[in-house]
Amino acid sequence: MTNPTIKDIASICGVSVSTVSRAINDAEGISVSTRAKILATIEKIGFVPDTNARNLKINKNKTIAVLVKGITNPFFTPMIKVIEEEISKTEYSFVLTKVEEHSSELEVAKRATKILKPEGIIFLGGHFISDAEELEALDTPYSMTTIVNKDIINKNATCVGIDDFKESARMVDYLISLGHRKIAFIAARADDLSIGHLRMEGYKKALADHGIDFDENLVIYPPKGLNPYSLSHGYESAKKIVKEGLDCTAIFSISDFVAIGAIKAIHDMGKSVPEDYSVTGFDGLEINEFLLKPITTIAQPTVKIAYTSVRELFKIINKKDHEEVTSFDAELFVGETTANIRKV
Amino acid sequence: MTNPTIKDIASICGVSVSTVSRAINDAEGISVSTRAKILATIEKIGFVPDTNARNLKINKNKTIAVLVKGITNPFFTPMIKVIEEEISKTEYSFVLTKVEEHSSELEVAKRATKILKPEGIIFLGGHFISDAEELEALDTPYSMTTIVNKDIINKNATCVGIDDFKESARMVDYLISLGHRKIAFIAARADDLSIGHLRMEGYKKALADHGIDFDENLVIYPPKGLNPYSLSHGYESAKKIVKEGLDCTAIFSISDFVAIGAIKAIHDMGKSVPEDYSVTGFDGLEINEFLLKPITTIAQPTVKIAYTSVRELFKIINKKDHEEVTSFDAELFVGETTANIRKV
Repeated sequence: MTNPTIKDIASICGVSVSTVSRAINDAEGISVSTRAKILATIEKIGFVPDTNARNLKINKNKTIAVLVKGITNPFFTPMIKVIEEEISKTEYSFVLTKVEEHSSELEVAKRATKILKPEGIIFLGGHFISDAEELEALDTPYSMTTIVNKDIINKNATCVGIDDFKESARMVDYLISLGHRKIAFIAARADDLSIGHLRMEGYKKALADHGIDFDENLVIYPPKGLNPYSLSHGYESAKKIVKEGLDCTAIFSISDFVAIGAIKAIHDMGKSVPEDYSVTGFDGLEINEFLLKPITTIAQPTVKIAYTSVRELFKIINKKDHEEVTSFDAELFVGETTANIRKV
Repeated sequence: MTNPTIKDIASICGVSVSTVSRAINDAEGISVSTRAKILATIEKIGFVPDTNARNLKINKNKTIAVLVKGITNPFFTPMIKVIEEEISKTEYSFVLTKVEEHSSELEVAKRATKILKPEGIIFLGGHFISDAEELEALDTPYSMTTIVNKDIINKNATCVGIDDFKESARMVDYLISLGHRKIAFIAARADDLSIGHLRMEGYKKALADHGIDFDENLVIYPPKGLNPYSLSHGYESAKKIVKEGLDCTAIFSISDFVAIGAIKAIHDMGKSVPEDYSVTGFDGLEINEFLLKPITTIAQPTVKIAYTSVRELFKIINKKDHEEVTSFDAELFVGETTANIRKV
């Protein structure tokens, strides 16, 4: 058998394709003996249940290119997994491409298009300062995943994410509801024009809605060369806040990793969270619920976002009606890092 | 200019290649104005400082394939970064390929070899139950990174990592030095033949060295379908240990993520770490030092391992003498999750 498919394996073992899939993915709902039989058959006839290998072997010659900006960001991890699983259910293969922090994802996409000739592109993360015209010229259906921006969407495209502006305002509203009015913001770069910018605008809106003046001194940007979404940015920024005695009682962090770093620094400086400072994050990382002091954060529906991106992209590819914009609500998760302001 | 290289950019801007590299990587040691000039030039002439894009544009037609088993494992994140940086300094391009949990990395490598025709392969993570003959037949230089196994090394290969057997024994020795003799082990799969197996053997050796009988009841394996190195495996296993009142005072975890999950479960069950149970991890994740209660763990020298893998692989490619085996010492990091056994 030259090119055994998952159907061949199913047929040889006398089981359904989904049972083979379960065996391959080590999923529940399949007996130990059936699983052993299927895996033995796979080993015997040489079928390799890997997306890449499968691509090479089963003539999956249609490709979806997934361009990830920030492949080391744990926030994307569960999304990459879902996107790959969903694509692997189709006749398409999945190619993962890393976009460097300072590269233009559009340029990478243009070149990937020439070489891989993908039928669709999923942009996971990224800044997208590129304009709509250039994106349209790409002439390949695409999904912008985790960023909702109606301005850069054309008939060949879909975007799926949360409303970063609204959710950011909601997080800051929550801090204000606890009595905080002096709220520092550990921010992304000052020249950020994407998600970092939207979250900054949300922060400003919440302050304005409650008649609090925006104070540039309470915003901490990362120094050049430091990843704005990193543990270190949070640590160094909060250390500075405590050391310089910045006049604030709460700290809104641009991401959960930043919040984790900030909380550590506050404790290292001999202060406490939430007693001395309330600290919030943004994203809802898997690890958060396993921390001894889970962070109050905006939990993004990552699985829904990833799943919907793939679904809507395939609608475009298959010339079906699709949603141009899907904006999910996030969840305000109240952890153990926020408290009512102390009456002094 | 059809194929502008980093040298062209340097020449146009009248700076050195390393200055251009600094500008691209947003590194220190370069003035704001120089950086701005370089980035403006890059934008103008269309050079994209992305490894993938560069590959497509600057005729980097020699490829190193990096096969990662466990791309979502945070332990590999800093290594992927170093490997990519090191390769990007050469005339070679970097292609990242994900190997599924149940796939054979050797099969993936065979097929990747056919399609990509890489001059070298880096296996990052993986089980390697494949035998030496098959690896030799691959006929492409390779590095096995994070696993040291002399038996599967041939003249075309190098392996770089730590001695998992020795370091595992050292971790358990340390627990014994604190007075613990009833030490549970949250382990990898029972049929693991790779790193999980080596760490199990190290655990057994340390017990034997101190005249402690190995007790199968104190070993917790992951249920089918659960990633052995995951937070959930740690959480569920420790919950079981506390709930069933397993007779132990310390818990050795197969990874840091497993330890983080275990510690959370112990606290959720109303017990304390290290007062009721000492808990140790293995790996030395970046996040560990940012946890409020850092884990006592074996910290692997990930940067050295990644850097050495690339260096030794290129020695093979360039027909120079190379090290077949590089085994680094790890560091025993004493955190806040271990204590002397309580005298009852």
